[in-house]
Amino acid sequence: MYSIGMDVGGTNSVFGLVSREGKVVCRDAVKTRDYPVFADFVSAVSERVKALAAQVGGMSQVEGFGIGAPNGNYYHGTIEYAPNLAWRGVVPVAEEFGKALGVPVTVTNDANAAALGEKRYGVAQDLDHFIMITLGTGVGSGIIIDGHLLYGANGMAGELGHVTVKRDGRLCGCGRRGCLETYCSATGIVRTAREHLATDEPSLLRNLNADDITSKDLYDAAMQGDKMALDIFNETGTILGTALADFATFCDPQAFVLFGGLMKSGDLIYKPTLAAMQANIMPVFSKTKLLVSTIDDGDAAVLGASALGWKE
Amino acid sequence: MYSIGMDVGGTNSVFGLVSREGKVVCRDAVKTRDYPVFADFVSAVSERVKALAAQVGGMSQVEGFGIGAPNGNYYHGTIEYAPNLAWRGVVPVAEEFGKALGVPVTVTNDANAAALGEKRYGVAQDLDHFIMITLGTGVGSGIIIDGHLLYGANGMAGELGHVTVKRDGRLCGCGRRGCLETYCSATGIVRTAREHLATDEPSLLRNLNADDITSKDLYDAAMQGDKMALDIFNETGTILGTALADFATFCDPQAFVLFGGLMKSGDLIYKPTLAAMQANIMPVFSKTKLLVSTIDDGDAAVLGASALGWKE
Repeated sequence: MYSIGMDVGGTNSVFGLVSREGKVVCRDAVKTRDYPVFADFVSAVSERVKALAAQVGGMSQVEGFGIGAPNGNYYHGTIEYAPNLAWRGVVPVAEEFGKALGVPVTVTNDANAAALGEKRYGVAQDLDHFIMITLGTGVGSGIIIDGHLLYGANGMAGELGHVTVKRDGRLCGCGRRGCLETYCSATGIVRTAREHLATDEPSLLRNLNADDITSKDLYDAAMQGDKMALDIFNETGTILGTALADFATFCDPQAFVLFGGLMKSGDLIYKPTLAAMQANIMPVFSKTKLLVSTIDDGDAAVLGASALGWKE
Repeated sequence: MYSIGMDVGGTNSVFGLVSREGKVVCRDAVKTRDYPVFADFVSAVSERVKALAAQVGGMSQVEGFGIGAPNGNYYHGTIEYAPNLAWRGVVPVAEEFGKALGVPVTVTNDANAAALGEKRYGVAQDLDHFIMITLGTGVGSGIIIDGHLLYGANGMAGELGHVTVKRDGRLCGCGRRGCLETYCSATGIVRTAREHLATDEPSLLRNLNADDITSKDLYDAAMQGDKMALDIFNETGTILGTALADFATFCDPQAFVLFGGLMKSGDLIYKPTLAAMQANIMPVFSKTKLLVSTIDDGDAAVLGASALGWKE
């Protein structure tokens, strides 16, 4: 049997058939923006999903369909008021895909899907208590407690990217100030770089247009020993690790699992994060591990979503 | 049937028989410090518990025995390394009382017991997702998710009194700096008062010996309109409410429930806490309520512990 996973993004929606062992057997994608009407999106995706399923014996071989999407609501099976998608208001995703494909459909947000993927296929397979932290354009989180995803009263639990790490700090997209994601996302670290570039300190980064700098540029400069770039990674990791130390007080996790674009910088970000976490964590939580996802970046979103498709 | 609840404190251990409706039918207490040997404590308490049970038909009328204790570990049924108790190391509380009384014995820490009490008998009876915050000598918390207490990997979940609210802030008993409880406990608010008294500002509080000031003194002064005392409550509530706003991102709770000595100050602490929570919470969590425990202070600890004694 197979599960289908789909990652709905503002630009692309990628989907694939996944085996029980966590192998993406085949995959396809559509451009999300080509379908401003949701019903058209359902038709296009369903047709292609059926074509994928035909390669393994048809939809009878599919146990379920898991969808990870921005503002995905697990309780309602909907995408609700997603600012980066064309579909307005509350979109009945599970209902429509269920009708089109005849399999159970489950929806959740991207970071929750990542946590489920890590639990089923990744480094967290033996963990029943962990917090997944996704360091991408923003900072997301998915919290696993007693082996299950924490959804909370309204399905919105795990918005740890919006914990305040600096009172009256940087303005966040959520309208508040000083949120973790304004410092420790791929975009946050670039904001830090721009602040450093506003000083007189010399740096290889000055050879680049400040408006176009990416976290990849910071990585390249740091690998060449650029002090400013190294400082930027150290500051970012220190903020992240200090925040993780506080997060442990909430649910006494066995581990944090880090994933996302920023983790491509490897030890440059991992080491200062670990050091700050260990320096700031309460002694009683000192056994908490800091792990890095081992799931291949290209497969992670589809795998995570597919984890929702299996019957428990 | 009845449940027995016991609150083990550094000075007194109070226990009582509780009816299903949450009435403390009868109660008794021993001085904890009179029993430096744990076995003697078990004998003394068990004898008195049996005497209480005799009033309702004997131990056959008792469904279970719940114990709230500092450093109480639910998973192990133990008290572990409690700094304020004479019993050293790991104390097999559930095992010893189980042998002495012949009923199931369950152990947890004080704040968790308070959360269970509020869920079974208090303002949280209809809530399945809430965070209990106890504002006493320290700040404790008990987190209810999907109707059940959150214990975490090692039974230590819910140490929200040790979330950092001020980087490099006040030294905490846990060895770290800036923990919530160094500002928002009954002792924390007194530290704030001492800081204010180190200025030149006039205040009724100057009529008192600064070393002996209590939160009750601050209440009395504030009720007489003393500006310094009012400022102290406002600052304390602002720190607490701002922290609660962040806590909502973890588990998307329906409510926070406040309890403990500091809440005797009523609106003086409640109003600034609510204002700061509402001003700082993410819009998606804006429905989260701020409730105050309605359980009588004298009964709360016994009631909370007794909630553990019922079979589910």
